[in-house]
Amino acid sequence: MGVLSVVTAQPKIPVYLDRTKPIEERVENALSLMTTDEKVALCHAQSKFSSKGVARLGIPEVWSSDGSHGVSDEKIWDEWGGAGWTNDSCTAFPALTALAATFNPEMAMLYGKSIGEEARYRNKTVLLGPGVNIYRTPLNGRNFEYLGEDPYLASQMVVPYVKGVQSNGVAACVKHFALNNQEICRGEINVNLSDRALHEIYLPAFKAAVQEGKVWSIMGAYNKVRGEHCCHSDFLLNKILKNDWQFDGVVISDWGGVHSTDEAVNNGLDIEMGTYTNGLTTQGHFPFSSYYLANPFLEGIKSGKYDRTVLDDKARRILRMIFRTTMSANRPFGKFVSPEHSQAASRIAREGIVLLKNDNQFLPIAVGKYKKIAVIGENASRSLVVGGGSTSLKVAYEESPLQGLKDKYGEANIVYSMGYASGPSLYGRAEPSKLNADSLVNAAIEVARNADVVLFVGGLNKNYFQDCESGDRKSLSLPFGQDKLIEELLKVNKNTAVVLLSGNAVAMPWVDKVPAIVQGWYLGSEAGNALADIISGDVNPSGKLPVSFPKKLEDIGAHSFDKLCYPGDSVNVYYKEDILVGYRWLDTKKLEPLFPFGYGLSYSTFTWSKPSVDRTDVKTDGTVIVSFTLTNSGKVDGAETAQLYVSKPKSEVTRAAKELKAFKKVFLKAGESRLVTLKVPVSSFAYYNEKENGWDVEPGSYTLLLGNSSRDIKGTMNVKVL
Amino acid sequence: MGVLSVVTAQPKIPVYLDRTKPIEERVENALSLMTTDEKVALCHAQSKFSSKGVARLGIPEVWSSDGSHGVSDEKIWDEWGGAGWTNDSCTAFPALTALAATFNPEMAMLYGKSIGEEARYRNKTVLLGPGVNIYRTPLNGRNFEYLGEDPYLASQMVVPYVKGVQSNGVAACVKHFALNNQEICRGEINVNLSDRALHEIYLPAFKAAVQEGKVWSIMGAYNKVRGEHCCHSDFLLNKILKNDWQFDGVVISDWGGVHSTDEAVNNGLDIEMGTYTNGLTTQGHFPFSSYYLANPFLEGIKSGKYDRTVLDDKARRILRMIFRTTMSANRPFGKFVSPEHSQAASRIAREGIVLLKNDNQFLPIAVGKYKKIAVIGENASRSLVVGGGSTSLKVAYEESPLQGLKDKYGEANIVYSMGYASGPSLYGRAEPSKLNADSLVNAAIEVARNADVVLFVGGLNKNYFQDCESGDRKSLSLPFGQDKLIEELLKVNKNTAVVLLSGNAVAMPWVDKVPAIVQGWYLGSEAGNALADIISGDVNPSGKLPVSFPKKLEDIGAHSFDKLCYPGDSVNVYYKEDILVGYRWLDTKKLEPLFPFGYGLSYSTFTWSKPSVDRTDVKTDGTVIVSFTLTNSGKVDGAETAQLYVSKPKSEVTRAAKELKAFKKVFLKAGESRLVTLKVPVSSFAYYNEKENGWDVEPGSYTLLLGNSSRDIKGTMNVKVL
Repeated sequence: MGVLSVVTAQPKIPVYLDRTKPIEERVENALSLMTTDEKVALCHAQSKFSSKGVARLGIPEVWSSDGSHGVSDEKIWDEWGGAGWTNDSCTAFPALTALAATFNPEMAMLYGKSIGEEARYRNKTVLLGPGVNIYRTPLNGRNFEYLGEDPYLASQMVVPYVKGVQSNGVAACVKHFALNNQEICRGEINVNLSDRALHEIYLPAFKAAVQEGKVWSIMGAYNKVRGEHCCHSDFLLNKILKNDWQFDGVVISDWGGVHSTDEAVNNGLDIEMGTYTNGLTTQGHFPFSSYYLANPFLEGIKSGKYDRTVLDDKARRILRMIFRTTMSANRPFGKFVSPEHSQAASRIAREGIVLLKNDNQFLPIAVGKYKKIAVIGENASRSLVVGGGSTSLKVAYEESPLQGLKDKYGEANIVYSMGYASGPSLYGRAEPSKLNADSLVNAAIEVARNADVVLFVGGLNKNYFQDCESGDRKSLSLPFGQDKLIEELLKVNKNTAVVLLSGNAVAMPWVDKVPAIVQGWYLGSEAGNALADIISGDVNPSGKLPVSFPKKLEDIGAHSFDKLCYPGDSVNVYYKEDILVGYRWLDTKKLEPLFPFGYGLSYSTFTWSKPSVDRTDVKTDGTVIVSFTLTNSGKVDGAETAQLYVSKPKSEVTRAAKELKAFKKVFLKAGESRLVTLKVPVSSFAYYNEKENGWDVEPGSYTLLLGNSSRDIKGTMNVKVL
Repeated sequence: MGVLSVVTAQPKIPVYLDRTKPIEERVENALSLMTTDEKVALCHAQSKFSSKGVARLGIPEVWSSDGSHGVSDEKIWDEWGGAGWTNDSCTAFPALTALAATFNPEMAMLYGKSIGEEARYRNKTVLLGPGVNIYRTPLNGRNFEYLGEDPYLASQMVVPYVKGVQSNGVAACVKHFALNNQEICRGEINVNLSDRALHEIYLPAFKAAVQEGKVWSIMGAYNKVRGEHCCHSDFLLNKILKNDWQFDGVVISDWGGVHSTDEAVNNGLDIEMGTYTNGLTTQGHFPFSSYYLANPFLEGIKSGKYDRTVLDDKARRILRMIFRTTMSANRPFGKFVSPEHSQAASRIAREGIVLLKNDNQFLPIAVGKYKKIAVIGENASRSLVVGGGSTSLKVAYEESPLQGLKDKYGEANIVYSMGYASGPSLYGRAEPSKLNADSLVNAAIEVARNADVVLFVGGLNKNYFQDCESGDRKSLSLPFGQDKLIEELLKVNKNTAVVLLSGNAVAMPWVDKVPAIVQGWYLGSEAGNALADIISGDVNPSGKLPVSFPKKLEDIGAHSFDKLCYPGDSVNVYYKEDILVGYRWLDTKKLEPLFPFGYGLSYSTFTWSKPSVDRTDVKTDGTVIVSFTLTNSGKVDGAETAQLYVSKPKSEVTRAAKELKAFKKVFLKAGESRLVTLKVPVSSFAYYNEKENGWDVEPGSYTLLLGNSSRDIKGTMNVKVL
């Protein structure tokens, strides 16, 4: 007969619960207390956006949320649909392409800090972003989610974004690792590319996120490389990410990106999410226990097929992420839809808008200058925070361009006509508009005819095939008859400026006829205010293109070869342009872009002194410093971005005509001058030596090119690497 | 034209976010930063079980969860239905009546700590329990959720429960304040009672929770008192709770318990939950903005109808609760469905089971003693964690009595026959069984006839009218033909013991014919294991009745008058028995109970030395200490509970024959003796003086009665209060 005893004294707090202990000690202690089943349970989803912790031990579950532009609404347990909560309408921040266009890492920090605060308030462990896939072709449906075509720019922007997010005790999840550079056949396409292209173009932003940003998680890509799916690629995950880069965080699969237990177990995946089980639709209930990393993994461990050290490694990484986030000491509380977040969204939007053309100071249009401003185009009034796939948001508010212009110029001075209609935002299919296109055009023409000035607000719109996940664009052209409409508007009113909202470059057959062009990307909740600030001149534009705008699609490297180069034959795609992506191709092939990488106008003017470099000879481990004086020679305050490119005219390998190696955005009051210095480590001159599988700084002569875009070079210098 | 500026330096952390600052400073700082709208938004629901924080400032929302026996599953945003999550199947702890029957405050601490850990792991701010309404009549449908009929016992048990819950950074919410002592007409019935009955019987457990337990929230009751609904009763909330008791926490309405903006604003309610808006059903979508404490409150504040200090007071209390819980420093992480919680549930269950009768040591039934044990009765196999209303649980597991007995005695030695069937568990209506009752009885008789021993497992079952919210029982009798069935079983097998699972006393017309009776309450996830441990003798029973079991309903005070005394005329109910609730009535009226309050047998025997009191004269602010030696004179280890009652034979006011003032549960090994002391402050001898509105210790002679139940007195002593 047992003895009934009193409640025993509380045991000492175990190490894993002791916030004062180092995380590694807490992880090892927790791991030592866990069963095999519990470790396996960490490694796969329990719902659409969560995976288990260890409830028995009080180790929290892992809750992740789309996406990199705002924190998604709460979802039904194991469906994609919203759960119908009313407390989850977020702040929409500008798309990452707009962030890249700021050329301002401080904006990336502000972005990451702000969106991380929103994720933290909503009790998320992981924010599923940012995306840093390189813009290889302007047709890629997800380019708007990424940081442009240049690996250095993307690296400089992703690091502060990650740090900002993680300062909230929320893990960033850099994605999609790697080479998810097109949506066509994304689930299966096998990317064939050189080691040089991989390491020099497609991996640097990931590497920076890992090594400088210290990112706590990374998302595998849908596609394959070297015959293996990226979500379980020995080459990408074990060799490069975890061994070479010493990544100590968690590899999370893209949703449905896992296809093999053997590979998922052994090739570096840690958490399997969103797997579509055979025979069940997205609306069905997935048997989470049959996930590749669920029962099949457990059985393989128990039978001895899989090594327990592999399981421990995964569990250790997942625990480490939990201890870094939800179990961390003094985790901040976050905040949600605060005025600070609106201000952040607004600042990033205003700095990211790029003024592409401005003949005869057509812009700014001062308030009060005109009595009748015609606003034409669906994007002036359409929600651009919804659609596009996983970045689609339920927002607290969205100021449309039309509303922003009305607020700025006065309701009475704005006349709106839609001009074209694209149909509803439907994920996975594009519906032709049911509206009578001609009548919309005719109505717009009449409005334009009678206006003092016309602002056409068009572009793409996150509908399927128009900047949207799961499909690429079908051409470089504007859809929905916009080119024709712009031509018609110009016929009745030459004072027609074009504002484009898109995540990709578009063709502009009317480019020479319009006096002004503004590239506005997707700007989030504050879109209308930011655009009106720029158009009115209350804010001086300072954005620079993070992508090249080609004159025609064929001027892009990926489109200069055959179909195997893009989009592939549905099995393989071959990156035949190799390292010559974006401006690297245009510059090397001496093709004139429509608007070059790094380009963007200001309402002010800037004068550049002759730049100098601090030395002419430098060792391979040295640094060169370029200096010059920048003067705001115009009448308004503004910013200019100094860009330093490096060229190796005579090289043992193929080189791009130039590569961005440093940039600095400089804010100057009207009339102000400042000494600007740009510091470049010579190690960044290296190319990836495929024979040695490592980075190689060639000795010899290099040219440094300082410009305000990749094409407008203000001065050149030479250095000799010894 | 605006100046584009860099990200400004981070401001110093504000006081309200500084975990090192005192809570009151943080509260005042947060309050100073809030708008009127934000303050009002704190005061009403945003969903079925949550209310807003201040998202802009990063102050978390308030998430509450039923209930006091386990943490409910996650719900659809604004409906009662489950959200279909798979991570929310909890540990079911024994019903609070079972906890009260342990007579062991350490078990209450263990209970609160354990359930609080489950609530914390599930990220709850508030656990909606415990319930401490006094057991006035055995017909009350919710008695099983409460702590019995004695205010002292309930007080001693609620305080550690609250402390245990709150040690997790989760607010307990003591309920239902006050006088929700019946379910019939609970939403409107106006309770009429004396100040003495209120203060001496119905409020002490609440007062102890507030003043000793320091509870952070309290739930208003559905019913009225003195013409006002308890959720906005000036008398209860402003005067007694917040003024007299200095409660500094949050008053939360019961779900749908609010009926007036004026009263809710001014009479002490802080958070309005679950209001049913006219014309909408429970399945409809409630306009939370039209809650009494939503827009009508806001408008009244803005128009000057309501005082802003009233709003600030509510907001301050809600913020205080948030800072004590989700924003507290080093909030523990909790844990969920851990083995420790199963052990806790099991220990509480084993200590709460009461052995009512055991002729000729019929029990325990040692393993191996019999080859064929017949188990009869639906409750042996029915889930008793579901049903009953808001305490209905989705559990990780539930060991049924049948399974527990099979596990204990071996599958081969157990034969089961249901004997009766009650139909499915349906909230709000009772369906007569569709099964053929006679055939069930006949099958059971055959099983019993051929068995060595019969264990009948019956009782109530949380169906509507059988221990369930919203309705009271219709009689004291066992339902579903159980009395007849027991008589039939006895006819074929005299070795028939009865195990009752119920939250209320039941009539037992067969009491003299059965050799053994076990009162098992509702025991949660570990029910079967705990019962099998007791029945087999692996654990020695030590529970004591926290309620009187009357021979007939009319022996209960509330049923000794007319219908106005119970259940009232649907408008008013009059507590005509006054302070004479439970054993106070039976003892004073010299009515023999079936089983008295405080009663419970052991498999061991205990001998009591003559008790002594440390003084014969004592001042009104003094203390008396009663001592005696208790010896386990039997052959097995076990526990006895010493109970000290006080009597005032000659009083200026009506007094109960005796009142419990101290108890101590003592565990003794077989043969062990121990000196037991019981300490009683003389202040507890006081009665509530209605003329002076205060407590009054009458001078004069008092009798101290030491017993092992309210009826088995082992010794008496006298003290004179000077």
